[in-house]
Amino acid sequence: MAGNSFGTIFKLTTFGESHGEALGGIIDGCPPGITLDFEAIQLEMDRRKPGQSAIVTQRKEADEVQFLSGIFEGITTGTPIGFIIPNTNQKSADYSQIKDTYRPSHADYVYEKKYGIRDYRGGGRSSARETACRVVAGAIAKQILSTIKINAFVSSVGEIFVDKPYQELDFTKTESNPVRCPDEATALKMEEHIKEIRKQGDTVGGTVTCVIQNVPMGLGEPVFDKLHAELGKAMLSINAVKGFEYGSGFCGALMKGSDHNDLYNADGTTQSNLSGGIQGGISNGMDIYFRVAFKPVATIMQKQESLDNQGNLIELQGKGRHDPCVVPRAVPIVEAMAALVIADFYLINRTYNRTI
Amino acid sequence: MAGNSFGTIFKLTTFGESHGEALGGIIDGCPPGITLDFEAIQLEMDRRKPGQSAIVTQRKEADEVQFLSGIFEGITTGTPIGFIIPNTNQKSADYSQIKDTYRPSHADYVYEKKYGIRDYRGGGRSSARETACRVVAGAIAKQILSTIKINAFVSSVGEIFVDKPYQELDFTKTESNPVRCPDEATALKMEEHIKEIRKQGDTVGGTVTCVIQNVPMGLGEPVFDKLHAELGKAMLSINAVKGFEYGSGFCGALMKGSDHNDLYNADGTTQSNLSGGIQGGISNGMDIYFRVAFKPVATIMQKQESLDNQGNLIELQGKGRHDPCVVPRAVPIVEAMAALVIADFYLINRTYNRTI
Amino acid sequence: MAGNSFGTIFKLTTFGESHGEALGGIIDGCPPGITLDFEAIQLEMDRRKPGQSAIVTQRKEADEVQFLSGIFEGITTGTPIGFIIPNTNQKSADYSQIKDTYRPSHADYVYEKKYGIRDYRGGGRSSARETACRVVAGAIAKQILSTIKINAFVSSVGEIFVDKPYQELDFTKTESNPVRCPDEATALKMEEHIKEIRKQGDTVGGTVTCVIQNVPMGLGEPVFDKLHAELGKAMLSINAVKGFEYGSGFCGALMKGSDHNDLYNADGTTQSNLSGGIQGGISNGMDIYFRVAFKPVATIMQKQESLDNQGNLIELQGKGRHDPCVVPRAVPIVEAMAALVIADFYLINRTYNRTI
Amino acid sequence: MAGNSFGTIFKLTTFGESHGEALGGIIDGCPPGITLDFEAIQLEMDRRKPGQSAIVTQRKEADEVQFLSGIFEGITTGTPIGFIIPNTNQKSADYSQIKDTYRPSHADYVYEKKYGIRDYRGGGRSSARETACRVVAGAIAKQILSTIKINAFVSSVGEIFVDKPYQELDFTKTESNPVRCPDEATALKMEEHIKEIRKQGDTVGGTVTCVIQNVPMGLGEPVFDKLHAELGKAMLSINAVKGFEYGSGFCGALMKGSDHNDLYNADGTTQSNLSGGIQGGISNGMDIYFRVAFKPVATIMQKQESLDNQGNLIELQGKGRHDPCVVPRAVPIVEAMAALVIADFYLINRTYNRTI
Repeated sequence: MAGNSFGTIFKLTTFGESHGEALGGIIDGCPPGITLDFEAIQLEMDRRKPGQSAIVTQRKEADEVQFLSGIFEGITTGTPIGFIIPNTNQKSADYSQIKDTYRPSHADYVYEKKYGIRDYRGGGRSSARETACRVVAGAIAKQILSTIKINAFVSSVGEIFVDKPYQELDFTKTESNPVRCPDEATALKMEEHIKEIRKQGDTVGGTVTCVIQNVPMGLGEPVFDKLHAELGKAMLSINAVKGFEYGSGFCGALMKGSDHNDLYNADGTTQSNLSGGIQGGISNGMDIYFRVAFKPVATIMQKQESLDNQGNLIELQGKGRHDPCVVPRAVPIVEAMAALVIADFYLINRTYNRTI
Repeated sequence: MAGNSFGTIFKLTTFGESHGEALGGIIDGCPPGITLDFEAIQLEMDRRKPGQSAIVTQRKEADEVQFLSGIFEGITTGTPIGFIIPNTNQKSADYSQIKDTYRPSHADYVYEKKYGIRDYRGGGRSSARETACRVVAGAIAKQILSTIKINAFVSSVGEIFVDKPYQELDFTKTESNPVRCPDEATALKMEEHIKEIRKQGDTVGGTVTCVIQNVPMGLGEPVFDKLHAELGKAMLSINAVKGFEYGSGFCGALMKGSDHNDLYNADGTTQSNLSGGIQGGISNGMDIYFRVAFKPVATIMQKQESLDNQGNLIELQGKGRHDPCVVPRAVPIVEAMAALVIADFYLINRTYNRTI
Repeated sequence: MAGNSFGTIFKLTTFGESHGEALGGIIDGCPPGITLDFEAIQLEMDRRKPGQSAIVTQRKEADEVQFLSGIFEGITTGTPIGFIIPNTNQKSADYSQIKDTYRPSHADYVYEKKYGIRDYRGGGRSSARETACRVVAGAIAKQILSTIKINAFVSSVGEIFVDKPYQELDFTKTESNPVRCPDEATALKMEEHIKEIRKQGDTVGGTVTCVIQNVPMGLGEPVFDKLHAELGKAMLSINAVKGFEYGSGFCGALMKGSDHNDLYNADGTTQSNLSGGIQGGISNGMDIYFRVAFKPVATIMQKQESLDNQGNLIELQGKGRHDPCVVPRAVPIVEAMAALVIADFYLINRTYNRTI
Repeated sequence: MAGNSFGTIFKLTTFGESHGEALGGIIDGCPPGITLDFEAIQLEMDRRKPGQSAIVTQRKEADEVQFLSGIFEGITTGTPIGFIIPNTNQKSADYSQIKDTYRPSHADYVYEKKYGIRDYRGGGRSSARETACRVVAGAIAKQILSTIKINAFVSSVGEIFVDKPYQELDFTKTESNPVRCPDEATALKMEEHIKEIRKQGDTVGGTVTCVIQNVPMGLGEPVFDKLHAELGKAMLSINAVKGFEYGSGFCGALMKGSDHNDLYNADGTTQSNLSGGIQGGISNGMDIYFRVAFKPVATIMQKQESLDNQGNLIELQGKGRHDPCVVPRAVPIVEAMAALVIADFYLINRTYNRTI
């Protein structure tokens, strides 16, 4: 109800504010008998954490996850997996100026109106720091789905786009540059652009594209819990996301049926894949791909008019250490949420065994 | 789990195949004491039903809803509202040709692979006829939300777009033309285009924009059940939808923070509204607006290669009565799903009463 | 939330008032590919329906279930199964006297206080007629669990008890007498007692015992959704139930550990079964058995003081056709609810497949 | 699904094994603005913890709860409350003997069969230590329900019963003796009996009665989520519970309707209260009372035949520090679970506000 759980069988519930003691979560419904690769989990954490490169926020956070239950001698036991990520680099002083202030396009104002109280330190619960817990759970979900490949990458920064279809990209290059764009020439342009934007004390939006390959047929639960509907919800629940499209997406709305339909091959695969690997809300075995739009980060290093809690318009300038562009760090979060959705539908689908 | 329920407090569960005895549903959690306007409910049904105009399918279906419970002397009692919509115009013969065939970009193939069995008549459960039940529930949700205004309209058909901001449109004009576009000059062009497309035996995609006004502050349940995330899921669960964006949407990904941030007025409203009425997943009292992309209808009246269940590629031509463009009839469905989301969050929000 | 759904994967949602148009429900999550035995379903309905014998209410209701979806050519398709049971024998006039009256130990008063409105005809939603929908779903659940045997029977009426362990009873005799007690000598005494009670215009309570055999090991989801906890909730949700115990039950509270522990055989079965087939909330493969207490029916054919909605105490005498003892008709309802619980855990348990 | 969550609006999810790093949980949906009394929470923890008196287990565990989120300056913020209880007194060596052994009437065997793996240390997830998290959440729920009084007490140990109605007891005496029985003479007998049992290396069962007063009318969600059905599930989910009855309970099954019906007073209260404060699953404002049966603790300090994982029957004697009788420490757990149920229905009931 209070929406801090995601999933049904493989269910993640999270807690934690940016400047509290710790973030953490519980994964309930993880299948037993999975030998976890803890290094792989930490690697995902490291991809998301701040301070990785010159184009992301320079905050230093260790983001080390501590598992407290549900794992015995390195193997999942089927009982809930509790974990925490201590907050080790809280500089609450940085935020004292916003105690009585509502920053533009931040959640300060609505949290106070909804709940009547607000942990103003670093955005509290509305901080994107919350996504660290998603990455933990997503990293475990990926290990359940070991034959399925989930690759996200930055497909645009501002007006700089990757202008190739994903099939022509080499996903092993994604991590080779700080932007996380596998097209290296474009990555360089994006990096320059982000540096320029940061110099201006400004921020810029972008998009992340995600490709999921080797998905078995049959995942997704129509009519309401269609596979793409849950993927959409998952992505839209990530901070700063403004849009989601899969397959042909918004371009599909421009097209004619005779051009849009994916004709079959004799083996049930399709010649084209404007459907994006999903028909009627159910995976058809073709690649699933979708694109997620992120707005520019709201905290800018320029003076801006803000509102204080006495109803005065005041001038405020962003302080602290913030990302000039969120999409490079969003890549592992998009993958994590995709993994959660796929793992959940994968486990649900087991109940359809027709051999009873 | 099997995804035929939507919502948490105001919860709709539906059933029904295109060519079965009836469609229907149960609304559990409707507040008691609402005097229902049954004409208003039927009016919404009529907006969705086939055969309304020359540019939609010519099937004739009465789509009359029968309420079976939960209402006493015209007033909701707080007990579940059961309803059915009899299927009165089933022409199963129309579909005998597809018994052993998987139509391109339809759900025939995946349903058979997922469930091992398929009611092939008219698409069975994957038929958009299922959305009639959503409209019933949405019409009741609208009556709960009597002070909130929900207006959807067709904002594009193929490459013909409404090129004005929604603030310049007169929503009372939406129903004045068969396309359901409040910009009458554009509506006319769209209508001509759809007729032309139909003559070609083809279909075309489009978009629907929805504006929700007078929403109280505080609706939405972060971090996973953000207001826009549920709206996105709701829209993506509608047949043929390929994308969702709210506020600045995909355009927001092109922008800089200094341009994108919505500065406050002293009363807490904002000067601009690129946020689309939602901050951090919570309504801020400004207009909520979003756009939904629909692909072209997959059934075309041209010969197309299809797959039969023996693995042969065969030629198939669409028969029967289908929509050349789905967006005009999608308008009431988009509104209905929006109403379900808002009503649910509205009721959830009551539990936050801070006067305990 | 509004509690008209039961189960998670195999989920039943019901609607309907005693004197409305129809009762009905939706079963979402029934596995596809089950060839349904409709006669077996109707047989369960007939066991529950009124008017079967001289010791139950003489109301005549056909209680014929109509399936509207989710079944194609007699086989479940995996889509939701919608069904209705028309109300054909409504004598609303019988209830006009209670329009403004709250009957003792009925739900009239609390429904009006909770919801502010009440369908007073025949108890409305609080009527035990609602259980007909549970029997429909339970009958389908039984067909999923074809190798599991669920046998309930009347184990006491007032102070007349079956004084044998269930192992000495022949469950094929349960349906041989109107009381549904497999111990024929005791059944006769119970029948006489019920007739005597009815002559007095009174009612009497009783217990139903249920035995579930051939349950696979591993069903149940600790720590909150233990198998016996869900069975308990299921039984307590049936009208007139006041208590639930399983295995040694309340007697177990009198015992010492050295007497109560069930020692193992070498094959993992146990020598005794005071645990009632469940350890730590998980089935262990031994027989599950439990006992359910039903209070005497509140409607008696004697004059009783009641309250009217003006706050006056008035004299009221039960009219109409009511059961002098509810337990004979409760037997199929107890079995149905047990089947729903077992089927749901059975399907959940599939997700634990450790061969991923 | 994997059942480690309880409640819908006020929802507790827990994790933790007896001998892992920590236990913990997340409370999602706690209303904002509650000034928490942390001493009161710790007091409840202390009532449950081992080592309090001579008649309970002599293990020493601090059981100090650490709150990690959801509370700002001592006040709940409406965001999820994460907490942990470190395991500080793990003596894993105590349990090495059971690594390959299944203890009689413990969950060792079924956990291994269900999950294929088992954290054997101290019972792992099946240890009653898990209930510490329930007490944390229950203590917070009690603070939400500040005007509602929840009093549980030991009503029997073995065959020693409190032979007075609860109305004649002084609940302020419950904590005055180690048995937690407010009838001091009976408490003394119980204490002697438990000491005697312990000397024998044996254990004994008992019952806990709980009385909830000042409950507002209207709590409970028929037809499946009746107030007593959820209370029953809540109690049956506690380790070692074998039965639940409310109001007249199993005695009600012996009675006639003319004796059992609760006649009204003119103000809507009832003269008797065999209904136990609940009609049709909805609270009627009278006292709610129920009784819970606990089996004797399975670990006894006598030699017993056990099963090893090679299928050999071996002799095993309980070691370590165990309770000879669980009911004194169960009292705060019963109260906590009752508080969770009432708080959840209390919040749900707010959505029925009929003034929309």
